Order: sequence, then C-alpha cells, then structure tokens
Amino acid sequence: MGQSYRVAILGATGAVGTELLELLEHRNFPLADLKLLASPRSAGNTLLFRGEALPVETVEANSFAGVDIVLASAGGSVSKAWAEPAIAAGAVMIDNSSAFRLDTSVPLIVPEVNPGAAAHHRGLIANPNCTTILMAVALYPLHQVQPIRRIVASTYQSASGAGARAMEEVKTQSLDILQGKQPKPQAFPYPLAFNLFPHNSPLNALGYCEEEMKMVNETRKIFGADDLRITATCIRVPVLRAHSESINLEFEQPFSVEHAREILSQAPGVKLVEDWQKNYFPMPIDASGKDEVLVGRIRQDLSHPNGLELWLCGDQIRKGAALNAVQIAELLIQKNLLKPALAANS
Amino acid sequence: MGQSYRVAILGATGAVGTELLELLEHRNFPLADLKLLASPRSAGNTLLFRGEALPVETVEANSFAGVDIVLASAGGSVSKAWAEPAIAAGAVMIDNSSAFRLDTSVPLIVPEVNPGAAAHHRGLIANPNCTTILMAVALYPLHQVQPIRRIVASTYQSASGAGARAMEEVKTQSLDILQGKQPKPQAFPYPLAFNLFPHNSPLNALGYCEEEMKMVNETRKIFGADDLRITATCIRVPVLRAHSESINLEFEQPFSVEHAREILSQAPGVKLVEDWQKNYFPMPIDASGKDEVLVGRIRQDLSHPNGLELWLCGDQIRKGAALNAVQIAELLIQKNLLKPALAANS
Repeated sequence: MGQSYRVAILGATGAVGTELLELLEHRNFPLADLKLLASPRSAGNTLLFRGEALPVETVEANSFAGVDIVLASAGGSVSKAWAEPAIAAGAVMIDNSSAFRLDTSVPLIVPEVNPGAAAHHRGLIANPNCTTILMAVALYPLHQVQPIRRIVASTYQSASGAGARAMEEVKTQSLDILQGKQPKPQAFPYPLAFNLFPHNSPLNALGYCEEEMKMVNETRKIFGADDLRITATCIRVPVLRAHSESINLEFEQPFSVEHAREILSQAPGVKLVEDWQKNYFPMPIDASGKDEVLVGRIRQDLSHPNGLELWLCGDQIRKGAALNAVQIAELLIQKNLLKPALAANS
Repeated sequence: MGQSYRVAILGATGAVGTELLELLEHRNFPLADLKLLASPRSAGNTLLFRGEALPVETVEANSFAGVDIVLASAGGSVSKAWAEPAIAAGAVMIDNSSAFRLDTSVPLIVPEVNPGAAAHHRGLIANPNCTTILMAVALYPLHQVQPIRRIVASTYQSASGAGARAMEEVKTQSLDILQGKQPKPQAFPYPLAFNLFPHNSPLNALGYCEEEMKMVNETRKIFGADDLRITATCIRVPVLRAHSESINLEFEQPFSVEHAREILSQAPGVKLVEDWQKNYFPMPIDASGKDEVLVGRIRQDLSHPNGLELWLCGDQIRKGAALNAVQIAELLIQKNLLKPALAANS
C-alpha cells in the first residue's frame, strides 16, 4: 500500500488538537509516526492514541527533523515562530491559525473547493477560519454553476469556537443561573448562558469584527473571486459545538430552488437536511461530530428575483478546523505534493 | 386627570397576560376597574394586582358589559369568538393574536410608527407579531428619512415567544443535559437547550414559516408600504426572554452610518447601545424587562453602497406584545378614540 508519513501536531492539547488526534486515529490515514508538540506549559503530559500513551513534547528547533507534515493549531504567534524551522526541516506545515491566511504566497484551502491551489505551496498551507470553511463548502457548488454576486450572512456561533474552556464556561454559567447564582464570565466578556452577543473579536474602523472580515476576505481568496460582495454579522450563541449560518445569496440571474437542491444533494462534503413535513432542518446538535456541512431550508428569496436563502450547520472543530486540515494533508499525499522537489520519489 | 377606564384582560393567566397586569400596575394608566377573564380551564384562580387578589373569571356573553377596553391575549380562536360580543357591548378590543392582523378593516398598530391608523378602527385593533414590532420600531425612523427598499432579516428568538411553558422547558432541558440525561422536548418539537432550530410554525408552499411571513406582511401593512421587499429567516435560540435580530437594509441611495445613528439616538422607543471600545452591543439579558428596543452595531454594508447593517434586541413579551397593546390603549385614550361616536363626551 505504499508510503506512510510522519506527522506532528503542534498544539496537541487544545480543542482542535484533540480532534486532530481523533481523526488521525479513525480515518484511514497513512501514518508512520505521530509526534505531539506543545508549549512548555502543556508539555510533559501524555495523550492516548491508538491505545498508546504518547508524550507531549516541548516544541524545539529540532522537533521537526524527519517530520513530513506539521498540523499546527496553537495560535498565530506559535505558527509564526515555528513555520520556518518546520519548512527548513523538510516538513509541510498546515496551519490552522489566521497568521498566514491572507498571505498571497500561501495557499488557503478547502479541499472541496480549491484543491488546485495546493500545487503552488512553498511548505506552508493555511487552513481557513471555521465559519468560512462551512460557508465555502455549502456555497461553492452553487457558485460554480452560476457565480454568486452577493452574500449577506448572519451566524450563530457556538462556544467551541473559543476553545474547550469556553464550552465549559457555558455549562458552568447555565448551572449557576439555574441555581439562582450570578454567572461569571471569564473566557467571554459577557455571560453566554441563556444569552448571546456579537462575536467578541477586535473591531475594525467600520465596526466589523475580525471574524466577519475573515468570512469576507477568506471566502474571496478561496473562491478566487476578488469582486464577490460579502457582508456578515457574527453572533455567539449558547450552543456548545457546531456553528449555524443564515445565508442570503444574490446571483446574476434567477437560480431555482429545485436546481440548487439538486446540486447540493450531490455536492462533496454537504448533506442536504430538509424534511418540510416535519419542519426538520439542520440543527447544531445534529451537526456535532459530523464530517458534513448540513444544509437546508433552501428557499426563493422573497425580496429579490435572483436571490436564494439557505441555512447551514457544521461542526466548527471538525470540518471547521481539524478535519479540513487532515483533508489538506490527504490531498498533498494523493497529489504527491508533500515535497514538491521529491515528488517523483513516491 | 379626569376620566378613568374599565379594562378587561382576556387570557390573564398567560405569559403576556401576566406582563399586562405588571404594566397596568406600574404605568400611570387611568384605570377605573380591572377584570380578569380566561377560559373555564384557567378561571377560578386569583391574581395579585395592586396588593389585591383579583378573581379570574370565565369569559361569558355578559363579561364585557361596561368594559371600555379589552386586552386580548388568549390566542386567535378565543379572539375570534369574543371580538363581536366585546364590540357589541361597547368595548374596543386590542387583540394580541394573529387572527385579524391582515384584515384590511382592522388597524395594525405600533404606536411609534402608525398611530394615525387608530382613527379608523371599528372596535377592533390588532397588536402585531412580536418580532415585527421590534423591527418596526427600529427601522421606521430610518424609513421616514429615506424609504427602505429591501430588508433581509435573520432572527434569534427566545423561548418566551412560545409561552411560559417553553421558558421552563429550556431550563429543565439544560439541567437534564448538564446532568447527563436526555432532554425531553414537549413545548418544542426538538431540544432547544444548547441547540437552536428554525422557527417551528407551519411552512407555506415556498418554505417560509408563519413567523417569517408575519415579518413580511405585517411590516408592509404597518409601514403602509406594500412594495417594501422583505425576506426573513426566523430561528429559535436557547435564550429565555428577549428576541434579537440581524437586519440588512437597502435604501435607494447611500445612508450614512452617522446619520442613521443620529436618527436612532432620538427615535421613540429606541435605545442606541453601542460601545465600540468595549465591544458592547445589545444583548437579550439587557433587553429583558426593558420598554425600549435596543439597537446597535449600525454599520455600512460592505456588500452594497446603499446598505446598512444593524442589530437589535427587544423584550418580546413586553414591547413585543403587552407594552405595545397598553400603548395602543393609551393612544386611544389620548386621542379620544375609545368610542368614536362618543368622543365629544370626554
């Protein structure tokens, strides 16, 4: 069955790191060896993988020797610090942080959308923002048939987007409120239990938060559509895991609901969830732990002849982060793109 | 000073009925007498009002004798059954149900928006849908300055919209989940705790639910703008009380954020909540129990030169239902419109 590969996870102890381990354990990934790397603070622990306790090592200059693929998920500053050493050691880094996503020399990839962009990598590939990945998977099949002209998105983002600690905080706060106590916000600036608020990432001069600008700029880069008009409102909701998105689309010409449904029912990475009799459509609890982006409630926009409305839910940690990164690794392997100069060897 | 009025609440024991009692107790309403009416099932109880235990009586043919104003909040079929007897007895019915809202002979009123419509009533005035009222209060001041051409709305609706039982269900389900038990949906078709789903009202042939069509049709009627283009996606979220709405607006010409902010900072029934330094904007927990619709995050739409984005939260039971009904009653009193034929008497 050919070659297998040495993989390192940088940031192995976080929410996405945990999911990466899960995926590498259960997918048919050609793994020769798995190395768990983290900051000195998290190093020293062990994590269970295929029944074996793997040590979490402190990331160091020589950590990447012999490693083929680095799955980085320890934040932008860590990725910036270790990208060069990893690439110099001959590895390809697939980076889950936002550090390199808009760097024109770094491919930004959703495998269902723009796998071809991988061919031009220089040792570094960026994994897009979670909300953006989910939207891109659902919209690109339509965009291919008839270019989308404008997107108006409103999101319903779960606590998991802010990490494992934020998920715990929502639970703790819920219990506090149910017991008549004051909820204590720590991971978030305001209580999230039984409440919601605009995404708490920094705001730009126009009042858009970073999360919203990621949806705008990253979608354009992934679609290769610089003139695609996008606006977004990102809201954090008291859901533990899986993001939802209400999306309004405008096309150049009318796009029938039937045609959209037909396309999305066969689209890679998408599962159409529409039971109109039961009023049953995508829900976060159904999307949690699933690989697919659940899409439904495809409707003719009542306010625009060329408009469509759709609703989606997707697991933010899985397809929105870890799975997409693993799929990029699998794409590099399939296309012999791990070490472009050595591609002929494999 | 001067005259005071006999009021009956029909549906006194529900969530909106409770709020009506609260408002009549604490507002400076010229109340001569308060009568609590309900179905035989709920009758027989007493409810506290200004320190006095008022009996809840079964609604009957002679219940409306001498009553000036009926505040009806017991559902469409009850309103349909009792509107004629109430009007025949000389009362004006202000109906919180959807039974008469689109009836062209019945005014549909948000006092901050179309108080003039009250002049034409024939004994019956409809109180709009909660989500619609909140949106109308926030948008009409802008619409007056420059007509809105198109609205794309996505809602975040609390459990309270489905009544007191639904609010309890979210709490019970949350506790169940935190204790590792399966949540049991009863008021809603699916678990709402730590989850969300499209509004579970009946769907029309185009896949729009009743709640969405209320936003479309009632807003047009209230604004007197039959050609206003509106599309909506209504989502139920695990918030106890107060609805939120992400609203994208298109105007004929550019509408500056500064101008919109200036208008909304002085608009009746609106409170502008925008602290850009603290990333602090309207939240359901802040809107709960408040009279005003909290509006914020007014932004230039990145996808349309004539577009604005805004975000609002409002108490669905208060301004979205009970307060708006009481304000209509106050409007009728102020304008001498309670008994049009007798207006000269007062």
